[in-house]
Amino acid sequence: MKRIDFQTNPSRYRHWRIEIDGAVARLIMDVDEAGGLFDGYELKLNSYDLGVDIELADAVQRLRFEHPGVKAVAIQSGKDRVFCAGANIRMLAGATHSHKVNFCKFTNETRNAIEDATANSQQSYMAAIKGSCAGGGYELALAADHIILTDDGSSSVALPELPLLAVLPGTGGLTRVTDKRMVRRDRADVFCTVEEGIKGARAQEWRLVDEAVPNAKFHEIVSERLTEIAARSNRPDDAEGVTLTPLDRSLSDDAVIYSTLEVAIDRAGRVATVTIKGPEAEPAADMAAVHAEGAEFWPLRLARELDDAILHLRANEAEIGIIAFKSHGDSGLVMAYENLLLDNAEHWLANEILLYWKRVLKRVDVTSRSLVALIEPGSCFTGVLAELAFAADRSYMLEGTIEGDNRPPAALTLSRGNFGPYTMPNGLSRLQTRFLGEPQAVETARAKIGEPLEATDADALGLVTFVFDDIDWEDEVRIFLEERANFSPDGLTGMEANLRFAGPETMETRIFGRLTAWQNWIFQRPNAVGEQGALRRYGTGQRSEFDHQRV
Amino acid sequence: MKRIDFQTNPSRYRHWRIEIDGAVARLIMDVDEAGGLFDGYELKLNSYDLGVDIELADAVQRLRFEHPGVKAVAIQSGKDRVFCAGANIRMLAGATHSHKVNFCKFTNETRNAIEDATANSQQSYMAAIKGSCAGGGYELALAADHIILTDDGSSSVALPELPLLAVLPGTGGLTRVTDKRMVRRDRADVFCTVEEGIKGARAQEWRLVDEAVPNAKFHEIVSERLTEIAARSNRPDDAEGVTLTPLDRSLSDDAVIYSTLEVAIDRAGRVATVTIKGPEAEPAADMAAVHAEGAEFWPLRLARELDDAILHLRANEAEIGIIAFKSHGDSGLVMAYENLLLDNAEHWLANEILLYWKRVLKRVDVTSRSLVALIEPGSCFTGVLAELAFAADRSYMLEGTIEGDNRPPAALTLSRGNFGPYTMPNGLSRLQTRFLGEPQAVETARAKIGEPLEATDADALGLVTFVFDDIDWEDEVRIFLEERANFSPDGLTGMEANLRFAGPETMETRIFGRLTAWQNWIFQRPNAVGEQGALRRYGTGQRSEFDHQRV
Repeated sequence: MKRIDFQTNPSRYRHWRIEIDGAVARLIMDVDEAGGLFDGYELKLNSYDLGVDIELADAVQRLRFEHPGVKAVAIQSGKDRVFCAGANIRMLAGATHSHKVNFCKFTNETRNAIEDATANSQQSYMAAIKGSCAGGGYELALAADHIILTDDGSSSVALPELPLLAVLPGTGGLTRVTDKRMVRRDRADVFCTVEEGIKGARAQEWRLVDEAVPNAKFHEIVSERLTEIAARSNRPDDAEGVTLTPLDRSLSDDAVIYSTLEVAIDRAGRVATVTIKGPEAEPAADMAAVHAEGAEFWPLRLARELDDAILHLRANEAEIGIIAFKSHGDSGLVMAYENLLLDNAEHWLANEILLYWKRVLKRVDVTSRSLVALIEPGSCFTGVLAELAFAADRSYMLEGTIEGDNRPPAALTLSRGNFGPYTMPNGLSRLQTRFLGEPQAVETARAKIGEPLEATDADALGLVTFVFDDIDWEDEVRIFLEERANFSPDGLTGMEANLRFAGPETMETRIFGRLTAWQNWIFQRPNAVGEQGALRRYGTGQRSEFDHQRV
Repeated sequence: MKRIDFQTNPSRYRHWRIEIDGAVARLIMDVDEAGGLFDGYELKLNSYDLGVDIELADAVQRLRFEHPGVKAVAIQSGKDRVFCAGANIRMLAGATHSHKVNFCKFTNETRNAIEDATANSQQSYMAAIKGSCAGGGYELALAADHIILTDDGSSSVALPELPLLAVLPGTGGLTRVTDKRMVRRDRADVFCTVEEGIKGARAQEWRLVDEAVPNAKFHEIVSERLTEIAARSNRPDDAEGVTLTPLDRSLSDDAVIYSTLEVAIDRAGRVATVTIKGPEAEPAADMAAVHAEGAEFWPLRLARELDDAILHLRANEAEIGIIAFKSHGDSGLVMAYENLLLDNAEHWLANEILLYWKRVLKRVDVTSRSLVALIEPGSCFTGVLAELAFAADRSYMLEGTIEGDNRPPAALTLSRGNFGPYTMPNGLSRLQTRFLGEPQAVETARAKIGEPLEATDADALGLVTFVFDDIDWEDEVRIFLEERANFSPDGLTGMEANLRFAGPETMETRIFGRLTAWQNWIFQRPNAVGEQGALRRYGTGQRSEFDHQRV
């Protein structure tokens, strides 16, 4: 199978253009029909596949890091008559279940990143719709905080998935219609069953768009709004960007080696071990020096490499059921790097790096693989790296030293970072979620910030799942990994998706929980994906035939 | 196929006993192995099927209405070595997808009703566990607010669904572990993968039970706790119960006729029309007179009949995709009955009837059929009956009169009941949910309480979806019903499950949304239900074989 690469850069884009004019950027979707990631379909009418979305994710990311002066971004179409027709249907019809699910997960994450930029980077997105905007096209527009639709008698927004394909608008569409746009539920019901969508004034009255504007004034109003939005942003005017240089990465059959981490693949055991290397020197003295380091700055480099590693495992290593996190390095240095960022959180670049870590850790949270942290002598699960242990389904910590190994006993060290900046999709920190039943445990842990916590202490504080000494360690870990690898992967996916997100729900948890789960169910139903199902028969001229039993 | 009847009474119970001693009741599960609802399995080890749960639901309901003096209820086992082994696996393995899903939905509703009794009727449940308590057995215990486990060296609580069957603890188990018991997520992960479960002190430390008590003191402590719980309740000491007499119901091929409503089945159109008849006389003057009427009292009678009708359609009419609600009668009388209850909400019986309506309407909310209200001349969609229009996916209202028909124009009338008592699973009223995006619309509507709102007014207030006059009415309704009936039922189920519950999430929305959707997905996956899947191979001596691809 073709390896999917999540790395790209504007010089390689086939589907998007970034046009920047001072504080305003336009992200122009102009999909190359012949540029599909796989064979067998053409990306007509600005429809998209994973490759198109990889470029979009890259563009959103680069706007934040490389163009700090951009304060408002308009998503527009480069085609005349169509804004975006949504996910390519032939691609979906031909894709495996697993590809469909992973594709939707990634596109969801990209849309969440757009909302994160608007909410937390003051780089605000709007959608400027001219032409038909259907399905995933409208879901893309929904990620923007302001939607302008031209009222030209034909441009419309639509979610035709149900009537056309018997599936859901699963890239957040249903959730954003009810919970972001807060469309009245009966109108939402009508909207989601009308193939041709809704135009002009009615789209505005129904809250589907913010403004339906006269076609003659469309461009003028879009520009006006961009200027207004930009004026409200507190982004710096004159900051210089940081170039996201190509990753230092080498792939082989059973490993991916990056500059700050290694992924070792054990195919027989169905385990990928991700080992993170701590920094080797003190951080720069201030943000000016950090800025000069740019993409080489350890926390940014690691975030990018870890992000890529997780995406690679998801897309290209479906048989790997477990991700085991290890680390080695100097805990004090990890803490120093993180403190530098936290102390300068008002600086745009520190803010962006912290926000990026939040997103990478969320990417870990919603990864449907069993996650385990193995905390061993010499490791540096400190601050942001300790979050990986809290993101894991369980953690094992080695007590004391290993015979014949002179590294000091494992310690876990908390930082301020464990109490705020890296919120999970549910809006809480991982420690708050962990201690929902014993909220005072969060405060007890907070009092230990900066103290290296060896196994007994970490266990007493409730920070790790199991503690074993040298004698039992290897067996216990091996037994766990073997057992886990032999469970049903589907059962684990469902179980983990439920156990990881206790506490409050947000639009994000709802999209990855409720909406995605229903969509995945539908993606298994013959009425959608069977020989006579709507997804398979779309465009063939044959009508789909349904089993009309309700469940 | 065998018709499933949701009506029963204690004289017919085969699996449960109710033992009442003053303010304390014991609900004793003692499943008759040979009493399965279908052939092909034996209900060993206090395992259950839908028939067992129908009795439980009936018992919980009768305790509230027939035994108002009961303040504390212990769920116990009538068997020596087992509390409850959960849902019967052979039953599950042999059941259709649709039966599995409906079975889980009903058992979820029963557990929610137990929690509702504890929270809102002060008839509090505890679980007293002796012997093994596994899967659905522990999920039943989780519905209680207090769990006592005997520490006899062998009794345990367990959720072995994943390791044994490759499915989820889907009757609220995962959700209640994380969000009600607030078990630490890594411990929850361990707990849900350990077949043999967790015993004694560790079960208490992990928050899985409230008390692990010495075996010799088990009975004594259970009695003590019941007395303590009863002492905290404000239920009346001396009230007499109201007997839930058998329903007045007659079934034929294409209709079910009750005393207050009729269900007409149009199989070709896949529509069931539920027509509710308003009351024919003024309500009694006070609660003493209501009490004397007992189960004949119109609001109670209608609630019971509507509840049964919905359950009947769900279980026995899978090909019916649409439920259309109609009504006819005197709006003023409907209002008078409801006002009597609202004015006496402190009276235990009025409280129970209002709470029952809340549950019946929630049953409607989570029914996976398209719901539509047809509001025509002569109808009485008033107060609690207007909730059916707000529960519907959409509503159609006829404007003006019908030629040749002398009934007055249709009007919808709001009552105080539309602004509080009948909360949805999300904890909001249906109008609050409807107007999430325009909260002031709730207040505008509140100012209209008691005013008959004809079509134009109801439309202007946002209370109905579409308004048509006599000329268009029939065509518009017909076109909608035909179109809806031809959509994919799975797509509709997923869409409706998402659009109906905007706003906050609760344990209930999470169980019916996230947990149920993942379970339904897993119930479609070959790793669970395929020839070599765990659910099919359980007990055959053959190991299940999994496709280890993660999705």
